[in-house]
Amino acid sequence: MPFRATVLTLYPEMFPGHLGVSLAGKALERGQWSIEAVQIRDFAGDKHRTVDDTPAGGGAGMVLKPDVLARAIDHVSADDERPRLLMSPRGRPLTQARVRELAAGPGAVIVCGRFEGVDQRVIDTRNLEEVSIGDYILSGGEPAALVLLDAVVRILPGVMGNDLSGVHESFEGGLLEHPHYTRPQVFEGHEIPAVLTSGNHGAVAKWRAAEARRLTAERRPDLLERDPKSGSRLSEESRANKDLEHDPVQPVKK
Amino acid sequence: MPFRATVLTLYPEMFPGHLGVSLAGKALERGQWSIEAVQIRDFAGDKHRTVDDTPAGGGAGMVLKPDVLARAIDHVSADDERPRLLMSPRGRPLTQARVRELAAGPGAVIVCGRFEGVDQRVIDTRNLEEVSIGDYILSGGEPAALVLLDAVVRILPGVMGNDLSGVHESFEGGLLEHPHYTRPQVFEGHEIPAVLTSGNHGAVAKWRAAEARRLTAERRPDLLERDPKSGSRLSEESRANKDLEHDPVQPVKK
Repeated sequence: MPFRATVLTLYPEMFPGHLGVSLAGKALERGQWSIEAVQIRDFAGDKHRTVDDTPAGGGAGMVLKPDVLARAIDHVSADDERPRLLMSPRGRPLTQARVRELAAGPGAVIVCGRFEGVDQRVIDTRNLEEVSIGDYILSGGEPAALVLLDAVVRILPGVMGNDLSGVHESFEGGLLEHPHYTRPQVFEGHEIPAVLTSGNHGAVAKWRAAEARRLTAERRPDLLERDPKSGSRLSEESRANKDLEHDPVQPVKK
Repeated sequence: MPFRATVLTLYPEMFPGHLGVSLAGKALERGQWSIEAVQIRDFAGDKHRTVDDTPAGGGAGMVLKPDVLARAIDHVSADDERPRLLMSPRGRPLTQARVRELAAGPGAVIVCGRFEGVDQRVIDTRNLEEVSIGDYILSGGEPAALVLLDAVVRILPGVMGNDLSGVHESFEGGLLEHPHYTRPQVFEGHEIPAVLTSGNHGAVAKWRAAEARRLTAERRPDLLERDPKSGSRLSEESRANKDLEHDPVQPVKK
């Protein structure tokens, strides 16, 4: 069974969005994955189609009602083994390791929050896994769901133009990637570093490793502080960066 | 001058995407911000419209050519004070503080990488600020650009239904947000915690603060380790979470 995504949202028209374009879009057409966007409001119980109410205990904002959201979740995933995710800045940060786990599974039910948040009793009774894509605030869970699905879909079997499985063998240890260069040899008076055109593969590898260490120390010292064996962000980041090498070129028709 | 975004991409059809819907879309129609997606391939110099080439020093993947991308950047932003961002997993992690800075400025030129990466000489000579939205790998910079712009646009003046400026005054100190509840009082046998319906505002505040500390310790101990005065993620996260309270309810027409 191909990976199957069901998104619960107040804005189903946001899907598939950019996932309908390029490699993800072609894989969608080929049936290598599927996406269904379901309107939460369709599960409201009143004629005004109310989905939210004021927070118990007071305060600003509105909270998604537990009964409405529970009905929506049950409708799309009652007898379903797919993990249920809730996109939320309170969630655990998304990692490439979690992306790989999701891609290896049957799919995902993704709840997109809006307003102040979601009633905690739905999170508890429906076993929602809160996931954050980063420490910034979005207008709702929809852009986050699209990012999560993009990360998952690109590593599904057959979606990219080539097999990604060889990538992990070239894993070299938790650093940001070194700088890249390509032709022309001289660009506005700046040459490609001589070592890269020396033909000395050992020297190239050494230069790249040193540059990766320098960049990581400069930009992400937090990665250096982590244990690469613990499944922490360090090793994931490195593995993740290696993946980029295998994105095939995709010509754009105009 | 309203915030002006120019996106350089091989997939201009991905924009405005979800930013054309809901509050961001309405603000776009009202002219409260603007977005232009520019095809990098239009700046290729050959009849095949080549935008990439093999990496100097060898290895898998392809690298975006410096000359083509530089022409595209210069075309859209030669006499332009807007910051130039490059969406990249090698970048510094996006924070709510950087989102606020961007929102206070004239706009942004956003380069979306694809393939292995971008020639370092364009990054250097065109002063590109590399920005990462998280430690996972996307098919390209486009989903990341859409997320960054969503975060920026929602805090532009007049985009949300109400003024966000009061939010920062209620900043209470770098924690994930407490759980939320709303009616019904009893949902599948689970009651709203009694303290929240007690009418005792002091007790409510105390319960929420304790729950926020508990959740943060459980999910994001890294936030607790940071200094709230340093402008680190800790204080940003908290400030950011407060913002969610001010997202107005937006009815969906069907």
